[in-house]
Amino acid sequence: MARLIPRADGRIRALYFVETAHDVRKAVEMMAGEQSSGTFVKIPGETPELQARHGAQVESIEVLGTVPSPSLPGSRLPKGTAQPVYSQAEVVLSWPFENIGASLSTLWTTVAGNLFELSPFSGLRLLDIEIPTPFAGRYPGGKFGVAGTRELSGVQDRPLIGTIIKPSVGFSPEQTAALVSTLIEAGLDFIKDDELQTDSPHNRLSERVDAVMGVINAYAERTGRKPMYAFNVTGDLDEMKRGHDAVLAAGGTCIMVNMLAVGLAGVTELARHAGLPIHGHRAGWGMVTRAPALGMGYIAFQKFFRLAGIDHLHVNGIRNKFCESDESVVASARECLTPLLGGYTVMPVFSSGQTAAQAADTYQALGSADCLYLCGGGIIGHPMGIAAGVESVREAWSAAIQGIPLAQHAAAHPALAAALSGFAGGGA
Amino acid sequence: MARLIPRADGRIRALYFVETAHDVRKAVEMMAGEQSSGTFVKIPGETPELQARHGAQVESIEVLGTVPSPSLPGSRLPKGTAQPVYSQAEVVLSWPFENIGASLSTLWTTVAGNLFELSPFSGLRLLDIEIPTPFAGRYPGGKFGVAGTRELSGVQDRPLIGTIIKPSVGFSPEQTAALVSTLIEAGLDFIKDDELQTDSPHNRLSERVDAVMGVINAYAERTGRKPMYAFNVTGDLDEMKRGHDAVLAAGGTCIMVNMLAVGLAGVTELARHAGLPIHGHRAGWGMVTRAPALGMGYIAFQKFFRLAGIDHLHVNGIRNKFCESDESVVASARECLTPLLGGYTVMPVFSSGQTAAQAADTYQALGSADCLYLCGGGIIGHPMGIAAGVESVREAWSAAIQGIPLAQHAAAHPALAAALSGFAGGGA
Repeated sequence: MARLIPRADGRIRALYFVETAHDVRKAVEMMAGEQSSGTFVKIPGETPELQARHGAQVESIEVLGTVPSPSLPGSRLPKGTAQPVYSQAEVVLSWPFENIGASLSTLWTTVAGNLFELSPFSGLRLLDIEIPTPFAGRYPGGKFGVAGTRELSGVQDRPLIGTIIKPSVGFSPEQTAALVSTLIEAGLDFIKDDELQTDSPHNRLSERVDAVMGVINAYAERTGRKPMYAFNVTGDLDEMKRGHDAVLAAGGTCIMVNMLAVGLAGVTELARHAGLPIHGHRAGWGMVTRAPALGMGYIAFQKFFRLAGIDHLHVNGIRNKFCESDESVVASARECLTPLLGGYTVMPVFSSGQTAAQAADTYQALGSADCLYLCGGGIIGHPMGIAAGVESVREAWSAAIQGIPLAQHAAAHPALAAALSGFAGGGA
Repeated sequence: MARLIPRADGRIRALYFVETAHDVRKAVEMMAGEQSSGTFVKIPGETPELQARHGAQVESIEVLGTVPSPSLPGSRLPKGTAQPVYSQAEVVLSWPFENIGASLSTLWTTVAGNLFELSPFSGLRLLDIEIPTPFAGRYPGGKFGVAGTRELSGVQDRPLIGTIIKPSVGFSPEQTAALVSTLIEAGLDFIKDDELQTDSPHNRLSERVDAVMGVINAYAERTGRKPMYAFNVTGDLDEMKRGHDAVLAAGGTCIMVNMLAVGLAGVTELARHAGLPIHGHRAGWGMVTRAPALGMGYIAFQKFFRLAGIDHLHVNGIRNKFCESDESVVASARECLTPLLGGYTVMPVFSSGQTAAQAADTYQALGSADCLYLCGGGIIGHPMGIAAGVESVREAWSAAIQGIPLAQHAAAHPALAAALSGFAGGGA
């Protein structure tokens, strides 16, 4: 996955994949003009001085090759072109900080605004951004991150092993609490609402908080261990703030938000209000990223939401059940653990088809146990029961961290052995 | 453009384009399960009763045809498929209102969440949604719409003729105000900030409001006519609210927001706070819509933001300078004027390369003069000056509304004649 090499010179910088039938430099210079001082044409007020001070600069162009047909429809050909050839390139643009100020939404508009519709381009995708230090003053990021999440959950030196309440929708608060009781007795560290389960008429958030925290608080009192439950507070801002306050008051330790449904300004405002870690679900992410020549890559995306204040970020999982490649999942997760402006630690969240079978590969790819590892069928569907499911995942991670081959470890650990024979490549 | 036929039976409904190498019905039923009570596999809590009550229903499947290769990468083939054929179809899914409640962000998550990444699909695009009436209680929509905008601007029976401050970025508040003075003296009804110009260090919003409203208020006192200026308040929520308050206090009549950079929750909260019309800019829209087999169509998109409280919605323009077809622009604009839940009137905003030359086609396609018609070079670049530019556009619309052929009208109106010979197909 292509990344920017930061220059830390105070400018805002963005790396793009572009595809065009035009001269690449001319097309990219038009893009730079459109996203800074210019418009499609030269206009009276755009003096050379103003252009020098506020114009975006094309810093580099690396032509990757050509393709015979356009990746996206709608682009226009250079005049008189009969047999177009489409050049693909990676280009870096930069802007003076002064154009934008320390504003995440203006940054988003500048690096990911109208440019996707510019007619010379048959492909345009934002891959990475460099955000200058003044942003750190206004956006301090998540208040909890890795250390805070570990402290609240009491889990050190290994991933938090978690699961998701299923069915996605349809349980009452009492049914949810009853399932939570089963899950925490089985040893889970982390449980979350489904992204579809917010404050719905059949399962009001306030009632769910009361019912679930009743179970968790009683368990914590008895055992000294308080599993983390991420309550999905996604909604309008007043609802999200009230939801957060209810979770905090009930002794809860995490809230969850669907980042793309809420948006950057909503997440930022909620994070400023919050006194709990925020679990960031990326439902809808496919819309932004799945066309390879359009949209935004995860490396750029996660920077916006880390600054906005998210503490846990979904990254899909190795051998997942969606369309994403392992290479892309691993690059996303590693990027979450890469410091941003010297900080902004965030827990990558592995989810979708995860079981004991992917633990070693995940640890090897990530080079760290700082993550949430969420399993559905890989725990709930374990042939020896849910507790054995949790045990199998813990054992798989323990083997991975100690560098013990999984098969060898399984020989002495029956829950792990059963998981490995049950979920060959990955779970359901 | 495909649209849903509303049933008004209280269910939430969504129309999708899908493409899959699997049996279409099986694939779409999996999609319905994943977005409601189910997950990838049958799970213990998903009883037949729960499924009947909360499961999404596949209401219709219309197969459009087949294609030999996938529109998007990453989809999985049915087991044992050597020569896949990809079926394309339009399908309608519906959900009980109870799953979601009257929550725009939960609605977004449900109809536009994880489904874009489901592995059977090599294409998936949301085309339209039916929103049931309980949403109207929580989301009353824009407070001004067509009637409020006309009242505040004093413009009746024709479009508001407008322009955008250019250069996009780089002017000081004083330079902006000086240009505004020229533009309103030339007769413009509406002026807006560029989407890139928010509260930047070289042009603070509060200073721009004071400088621009000084000019506009003086003009209004002198002439009795107060042109509308849309100040771009895009930012964090506290900044947007402060920005709105400053505009209101200074006698301004409109604020603008970059909808996708701010997001649904932020726009909703700002709209609840606002006492002015909100001009909705769609910068970044290309990212969501430009891949034909992915993302969201405008008919669905605009419903979310109309409910959230937007009063003016950008729709691009006929013979625009971007990648969008006229057919798509016209369908978007017509949809903005189609009542939603019996109301939610919103002004479609035509912009990008507009001149006197497109007025007749725009009026004919829209069947209404209820719109904002924004010209850049088409007014500023008029050979006889800016006032003649404004005059040419007003004359073109006057001819269109009266049903007079443009060439005939131009014969007696020199500003229009000059515009038509200067901007043959459309302007810059």
